[in-house]
Amino acid sequence: MANHEISCGLEYIIAPDLQACLSEALHANFAFIVLPIVHPRFRRSFLPSGGTVGGFTRSDMILSPQDWNSRIVGRLSHYLDPDSASPLVRQRHEDCLNEELAYCRGLGLPAVMLNLHSRNVNNLARNLHTYMDSSQHPTLIWTCVPMLCQRTLRAQESADNDNIEAWNEPWYWWTTFHERMGWDKRIGVVVEIPADLPPQEVLKRWLGEPIKAIIVPTTLFHNNKKGYPVLSRAHQQVVVSMVEHDAQVIVSGARRSNIEYYLQYLYRLWKKRPYVADDPMLSYAKGWEDYLQIPLQPLADNLDTHTYNVFEKDPIKYDQYQKAIAQALNDLQKKRKEESINNESNTEIINTSAKEIIQGDNTSKENERAITVMVLGAGRGPLVRATLNAADITNSKVKVVAVEKNPCAVVVLTAQAKEVWRDRDVSVISGDMRQINISPKADIIVSELLGSWGDNELSPECLDGAAGLLKNGGISIPREYKSYVVPISSARLWAAARVANPTNAQQMEKNLETLWVVYMQNKHDIGEIKEVFAFEHPEKGVKNHEGQELLDYRGLPLTDNRRSTTLRWEVQQDNVMHGFGGYFDCLLYGKEIISIVPSTHSPGMISWFPVFIPIKTPLRVLKGDTITATFWRCMNPRKVWYEWIVEVGNQATPLHNRNGRSSEMLL
Amino acid sequence: MANHEISCGLEYIIAPDLQACLSEALHANFAFIVLPIVHPRFRRSFLPSGGTVGGFTRSDMILSPQDWNSRIVGRLSHYLDPDSASPLVRQRHEDCLNEELAYCRGLGLPAVMLNLHSRNVNNLARNLHTYMDSSQHPTLIWTCVPMLCQRTLRAQESADNDNIEAWNEPWYWWTTFHERMGWDKRIGVVVEIPADLPPQEVLKRWLGEPIKAIIVPTTLFHNNKKGYPVLSRAHQQVVVSMVEHDAQVIVSGARRSNIEYYLQYLYRLWKKRPYVADDPMLSYAKGWEDYLQIPLQPLADNLDTHTYNVFEKDPIKYDQYQKAIAQALNDLQKKRKEESINNESNTEIINTSAKEIIQGDNTSKENERAITVMVLGAGRGPLVRATLNAADITNSKVKVVAVEKNPCAVVVLTAQAKEVWRDRDVSVISGDMRQINISPKADIIVSELLGSWGDNELSPECLDGAAGLLKNGGISIPREYKSYVVPISSARLWAAARVANPTNAQQMEKNLETLWVVYMQNKHDIGEIKEVFAFEHPEKGVKNHEGQELLDYRGLPLTDNRRSTTLRWEVQQDNVMHGFGGYFDCLLYGKEIISIVPSTHSPGMISWFPVFIPIKTPLRVLKGDTITATFWRCMNPRKVWYEWIVEVGNQATPLHNRNGRSSEMLL
Repeated sequence: MANHEISCGLEYIIAPDLQACLSEALHANFAFIVLPIVHPRFRRSFLPSGGTVGGFTRSDMILSPQDWNSRIVGRLSHYLDPDSASPLVRQRHEDCLNEELAYCRGLGLPAVMLNLHSRNVNNLARNLHTYMDSSQHPTLIWTCVPMLCQRTLRAQESADNDNIEAWNEPWYWWTTFHERMGWDKRIGVVVEIPADLPPQEVLKRWLGEPIKAIIVPTTLFHNNKKGYPVLSRAHQQVVVSMVEHDAQVIVSGARRSNIEYYLQYLYRLWKKRPYVADDPMLSYAKGWEDYLQIPLQPLADNLDTHTYNVFEKDPIKYDQYQKAIAQALNDLQKKRKEESINNESNTEIINTSAKEIIQGDNTSKENERAITVMVLGAGRGPLVRATLNAADITNSKVKVVAVEKNPCAVVVLTAQAKEVWRDRDVSVISGDMRQINISPKADIIVSELLGSWGDNELSPECLDGAAGLLKNGGISIPREYKSYVVPISSARLWAAARVANPTNAQQMEKNLETLWVVYMQNKHDIGEIKEVFAFEHPEKGVKNHEGQELLDYRGLPLTDNRRSTTLRWEVQQDNVMHGFGGYFDCLLYGKEIISIVPSTHSPGMISWFPVFIPIKTPLRVLKGDTITATFWRCMNPRKVWYEWIVEVGNQATPLHNRNGRSSEMLL
Repeated sequence: MANHEISCGLEYIIAPDLQACLSEALHANFAFIVLPIVHPRFRRSFLPSGGTVGGFTRSDMILSPQDWNSRIVGRLSHYLDPDSASPLVRQRHEDCLNEELAYCRGLGLPAVMLNLHSRNVNNLARNLHTYMDSSQHPTLIWTCVPMLCQRTLRAQESADNDNIEAWNEPWYWWTTFHERMGWDKRIGVVVEIPADLPPQEVLKRWLGEPIKAIIVPTTLFHNNKKGYPVLSRAHQQVVVSMVEHDAQVIVSGARRSNIEYYLQYLYRLWKKRPYVADDPMLSYAKGWEDYLQIPLQPLADNLDTHTYNVFEKDPIKYDQYQKAIAQALNDLQKKRKEESINNESNTEIINTSAKEIIQGDNTSKENERAITVMVLGAGRGPLVRATLNAADITNSKVKVVAVEKNPCAVVVLTAQAKEVWRDRDVSVISGDMRQINISPKADIIVSELLGSWGDNELSPECLDGAAGLLKNGGISIPREYKSYVVPISSARLWAAARVANPTNAQQMEKNLETLWVVYMQNKHDIGEIKEVFAFEHPEKGVKNHEGQELLDYRGLPLTDNRRSTTLRWEVQQDNVMHGFGGYFDCLLYGKEIISIVPSTHSPGMISWFPVFIPIKTPLRVLKGDTITATFWRCMNPRKVWYEWIVEVGNQATPLHNRNGRSSEMLL
């Protein structure tokens, strides 16, 4: 969905004259070229280890260092197989591999491209680890695989199936290699687009991989009526969706048209791609794709003014709150009217003579009838505004009490009460909603305490603490909220989480036991989204084994906000699980909801990115496997935290974040 | 194999009078008692979290703190199931569990015993993690499981099989729990011995687990003719083998005899256990069972005098060397005689008239015929002694050159040459065998440079470096050595390795990428032992693709001591793999070998303990799975190191010790 330009490269299978190749490509406007590192005429001398580097290929003096550094992707010899079954070949190819890698390092290439041939990649990975560990220069590894394994296809030809194994096979080559490389984020994949395209689920799985580039062979193009090379509609879609996920495009193979035409076609294709509606979320999220942030702790830390600024700009959230408040005000008025009619008819029957007294008391009664709305955690006042608007719309008389613990926000709030809302009944109370006592009690309490995973900013604890502020039978907005998860594959998010903070081994462990707020792009859902925890307000309270509701020391329902849930998913396609995507939805009141669950996402609401919940050890899952995940919401007097564990068959992750050791929400 | 005493405890299912129970047990000579923590008459109040501790059970004033601290194992309530499918039961039992644990902590019990009921142990483990993380007091957890799962047995009854699943099931409960607890070494297992005993392989697997105790129900005893309780022969064997692996014995259940008789029987049983031959290795290893040591680096570091002392005491090794040297001397003399006969006959034919000259030269010839034996890495001289002895035995004339790089050892060596060997031809050369030049060259070189895993003290590099010291066609003793591995299950060794050095997360990573020298006791072999790397001396040298032997700059065969090997095992029984046991054997000369491979172990040779090679992530393996392990021996100009990776199905460990980052042998 990124709004970037398309970046295209040109591959030369042989390059007898480097300077000519580069000139041609740049002249045609390609951004880079892909070149073999070894000159095909070169025959190597045989020496185990410490061979002579530099003699086996072209001199590096032909191009300027800048060109080598930015324009050239070096391709290692196709035939290299350091995982050969033959010990002799294995050792020989290992030595050649290291020779070529050393040469790439010497040239300072930005990326080295290599080919995988099978799932046997242990020795390749081992040598690349050594190479990368000993490299100062941050070389990227581009791992080239076909999308379809012809070998498997031929082996399977007689079988009457959907060739899924032939589509799976190269994906296994890549993910096995990536796994052996520790899911290192410097390792990307380059997929060759085949003439026959795979099933949608295979394509979608690839879109969850860190695709650095796609190879588009010139054979995929056919000439249109005017003689220009074009792609089929299906291929167009694949190319566009890959480029939307940040892939670059490498044109490769024999030219059947002027090389510039291919590039011009790709540019046009990208420009005329299906128009994405002007979604505020998409433009808001631009630049934040797959960028990890630590969740806020608005209870423990006071938000700064910049954060308020951002959140108050949400075009949808406060609309929804306003509608919900209006609905609640309407319902309360209706209820009161019914009660008052009941009262009056009762009064008439019981005590007709008191009529004058009741009528004379009318004015004070009208005053009493103002509906008390408490905004708990009012911040700089957006929900006060929404409440006043709702009162105007429903023609209700409201008394608004704005409670806020952040002193800076209280200053703004008080100023607004004096100036903007001076002819309204708005009072500001500075304090923690869990510790104050206000009377009269509220008919409605309104709060916005939800995090990206629903309860993860301690809304349940805050609202339970403030339960004494609400009249019996009063309304809480929100009324209910739920958290959701879906198991996902995303090597990119996992690798980013692992090294997110200045890294030592200890910090890496912590990073993988933490929720991360992130606009996820480069990921693939392994199952359906499922509900985790639900919270209602006002809370029903715990019952004892005789069914009696228990009360706390304040005489309010005793609540228990600890939770645990076990969820199960059946795997539909071989994959690797790296963690969960986490979401929430929330019933404000009536039928007004806010949601960041993809299928019900409140259109245009930008206040929340989802969360990524990593697992410490990525798990391989096979079609038919069951993923079992258990989440706990734990608490002690000082903090709330989550723990989680995932099991697949006999495999299990460690228990994450035990005793809240890596991430916690302070009370 | 340990020579300790048997330690027995007595379990009380209910204990109405603590002091009386303890007195009775101590009076009968039991070492400890097992008691329920909760009094059966106690009915708990229901309060989520933070319940009142102390009211629900007996007062802790009844016993002295010393008794609580050393004599009492507290048993948690049997029925506790914090992993119940019912959320209400789950939460309730979790709260009860924590209440009982808090009480155990308060009493300072040395061990807490709990029961497992199924493989669902996530929540139990989670709560125990929290308990142990927040405990200053080092409580041990004794995890009680039956050996046979009656539930599975009944479910399987109709099936015509060996009930292996009913024997597997409780082992799964335990290992799943242990896995969830991170294989923590504070967690042990207590197995209840059943009336019907399991197949041998099941028993052997249990012997690889950290068994803290076995429960021997009194129902297993029958009364002998004299009316004393005794066990069947099969049960005797089980009890003895468990106690040999450090298990304590808990007698439990209704008494059908005087309680003292059970204990007296167990003592007798232990004393009269099958006599273990007086193996020097067993007495040498006593106290070293499962104790991890870092391998020596005799090349990089000089050995100290204590180490020489220990090694020189080996009653077998130098005998074997002496025999091998004698054999080599005999063979050389025979060869020379044949050559000389050939020469003489040749001489006769070609040049009969020169006979006098040859005879006249006899004395100097005799001198020349002294066989030059170089002892490379002579240390304080044991191999010099072996050589001189061998010369005496074979009536050979030898010239011994002792080469040693350790200055301290050279002092001792020189002193011995002057005093002890003053009438023998022994010269001492101080220097590194890879860098010195001596003439005449040696007929025989003798060295003892092997580590517990064969080449892991750099014998190949040292002997290749010294290859120039050996005559063409000369003899190297040793002639060949091989390393071996077997995949093993050993939670104890794994946990010990992980926390071996002052531990931070980084060090734990390193600890699991290191070879450990250890006399392994509490482990179970998952497969057959297999060969890893082999080395021959003198080395044959590398051939090029035309079959020509390549030479190095000295004109000696170019050697390549890098190796890689992939090994496979088919798993015979569900298990958990924690690493490998590593061994070596060595052909000295002729048919004289030294070996620490269990099946061919040189009897009485004490110089080497095996190695434990851990894997970072223990792997669950199922019957029928294939374990694939690849080992690399890598080198650069400064060091040699091993890397390894293990794959089982779709699971794989990370690549261990990449680029030698955690363990290395310096050249």
